[in-house]
This record gives sequence, structure tokens and C-alpha cells, in this order.
Amino acid sequence: MDFAEVLARRRMVRNYRDEPVDPAALTRVAEAALRAPSAGFSQGQAVIVVTDAEIRAQIAAAADEDEYVARGFDPWISRAPAHIVLCVSEEAYHRRYRMPDKLDAEGKEIDWPIPYWWVDIGASLMAVLLAAVNEGLAAGFLGTHAISDLRSILQIPSEYTPIGIVTVGHPAPDRRSSSLDLGRKPLESVLHWQRWGS
Amino acid sequence: MDFAEVLARRRMVRNYRDEPVDPAALTRVAEAALRAPSAGFSQGQAVIVVTDAEIRAQIAAAADEDEYVARGFDPWISRAPAHIVLCVSEEAYHRRYRMPDKLDAEGKEIDWPIPYWWVDIGASLMAVLLAAVNEGLAAGFLGTHAISDLRSILQIPSEYTPIGIVTVGHPAPDRRSSSLDLGRKPLESVLHWQRWGS
Repeated sequence: MDFAEVLARRRMVRNYRDEPVDPAALTRVAEAALRAPSAGFSQGQAVIVVTDAEIRAQIAAAADEDEYVARGFDPWISRAPAHIVLCVSEEAYHRRYRMPDKLDAEGKEIDWPIPYWWVDIGASLMAVLLAAVNEGLAAGFLGTHAISDLRSILQIPSEYTPIGIVTVGHPAPDRRSSSLDLGRKPLESVLHWQRWGS
Repeated sequence: MDFAEVLARRRMVRNYRDEPVDPAALTRVAEAALRAPSAGFSQGQAVIVVTDAEIRAQIAAAADEDEYVARGFDPWISRAPAHIVLCVSEEAYHRRYRMPDKLDAEGKEIDWPIPYWWVDIGASLMAVLLAAVNEGLAAGFLGTHAISDLRSILQIPSEYTPIGIVTVGHPAPDRRSSSLDLGRKPLESVLHWQRWGS
């Protein structure tokens, strides 16, 4: 699909048809996460693809899906035929930036005014969301704060932190997020030319 | 351009031809940042597009480009005809998650185990990098830690934090980053199925 169309079509979809995802397409979507850049080529990103129905049900339970459904939403976590779990290792960045070519003038690891591990896994997230659209699929995202116990369900080692799951499937009609009622910020408040405020 | 081709072609380019970028194309690339998702539709992301030669020279000086060039690299910061500066407001997320529909069961703002403002600006970064490729352009990235004074040069308000600049231009041959000599991690170490380690 044309890039501009993929970008324009991307939106969070929180309901899916009861239909499996082609494994080759799913692999391409998951591998897109690993096409994102990383500071110093630290490659701190990692991905777990979950299609197993029992594990998906465990994740849905850990996300308290029943309570969510009771409020009128679709059971989109358990219904999604695939979960792509995005993980990142902060430690990978520290290891990389303690290598000789990355030390500062005093021979020390740089300070990290921006924690680029979160930025880079965000780049991976966007790549996955767009790659799903490119395959004619749809994706949603649920953050780790809303899922207890994801680490132990998936046996994620302590070095890695899961930031959440991307649900992937064939789109079904869903209930629109009330967050969208906030409206989009006016372009002139978020896109400036030459300097802020211009 | 086809999405898969855009994704495959994306790489950091650190040298550009002395040729301006079409303003309409540049606008599309910058606006791609604002197509990224944000937690709770907080829309904490903002962008400054710098094409003014004097401001670009100030940024290059703040990035200590001369010292970089002395080590054998190209003057890619000053040479890039456009800088897209990516900013994010953590405060926008706190404001959003203090609204009634986002409070937890005890009526309080959620804890933030993951700082999603960094994740979301990372999604914006990826959108910009890919959108540049889609326009037949190339892009590089330099983090804020390597640029002193970016906030004051661009008059960025205290609420927003710049994470770095995306340099955009027509690609010229560049010196390959030595970080790439590290090699890509084996796929089986970063892509797992069903559970970590499988």
C-alpha cells in the first residue's frame, strides 16, 4: 500500500473479526519493530508475538477485560488473533554507551537528558502500527499500566521492560474512543516554523 | 512509494546535497509527526521546522559541528536544508490523565510505569523518518544531549522538551556510522513467539 495511505489510515482499532492472521503477514508486522532506529545502534528493542489462544486469554484476564466489557466495550484483547508485545532494555543502551567510541571527553558514559530507550521503542511501536495497516489489518495498543503480570505470563527477563501490547487482527466495527471527543489540537499550536510560536 | 519499500530504505543519512527541499514535501514530512498516536489522545507532541540558514548555523554551532568535521565527518547539520525539531510535553499527559475518565479506582491519576510521552514522541520520530524517505528525501537524527542550548535558540517554552533534530534533505554520499560495525543482533534473540525464549 502507498505510504501516504498507510499513514492516513492508521488509527487504533479495538475490535477484530474472528479470523486468523496470515502468519507471513504477522511476521512482517512484528519484524517492522526491528526496523526502527536505536541510539548508537544499541538495538534494545525486542518483540514477542503471541497467537496462542490460552496465553492471549491470560493477557486479557490480566488486563481485566471483563470489567472493560461490562462498561460496554468489545473484548478486543482476547478477540485479537495476535498480540505483539513490545519490550526494551535500558541496560542495552548503557552497555553501548560505555564502549570507547561513545564515552564523553572525560571518558565517562554520557548523561541521558532524554531516555532514548523509550523513544526508540516508540519508533518500533509506530512501525508496527503502520505495518499492520499495510497488510490490510488493524491494530490497537494497550499499555503495561493496564495489564498486571505481563512479565510473568510471558517470562520476560528482568533486563527487558514490556511497554504494552499491540493487538493485531482483521478490523471489526468498534466503539469509538471518547478521547477523540477532545478534538485535535489546532495545527498552529503544534507545528511551528523557524522558531517556537512562529 | 510503497510502504514496504519506504521501511526497507530507511536509514540514517548524515550528508545532503546543496539543494533546497520542496516546501510542500517538507510540510508533509513535518505533519507526519502529528499523525503518531498519543496516550489518551494527550497530543503532547509538537514540531518546529527550521529552514532559515542562520538558525541552522546556530544549531550546527551548538552541536559543535566543527569538532565533528575535524574528526572526518561531513558538516551534515548545517548542510541539511531543513531541521525538524521534535518536542514533547510531559505535562500534557498529566493534564489529560487528571480528567475524570482517566482517573483510577481511587480517583487519582495513574502511576506511569512507562513514561508514554517519550514513547509517543518516538512514534512521531519514526513517522517523520519514514515520511522523508517517501518524499525521495533522506533524514538523520541528532539527540538533544549533543546540542547545547537548543531550547534558547528556538525559544521553546519550558513545558516542552526537545528530544533532538531530524535533519532532512536530498541524500549525498556519507560516512557510514561505525555503530553499524556492531552488526545486527540475531533475529532469534529479539523476536520471540508465544513466550520469551521461544
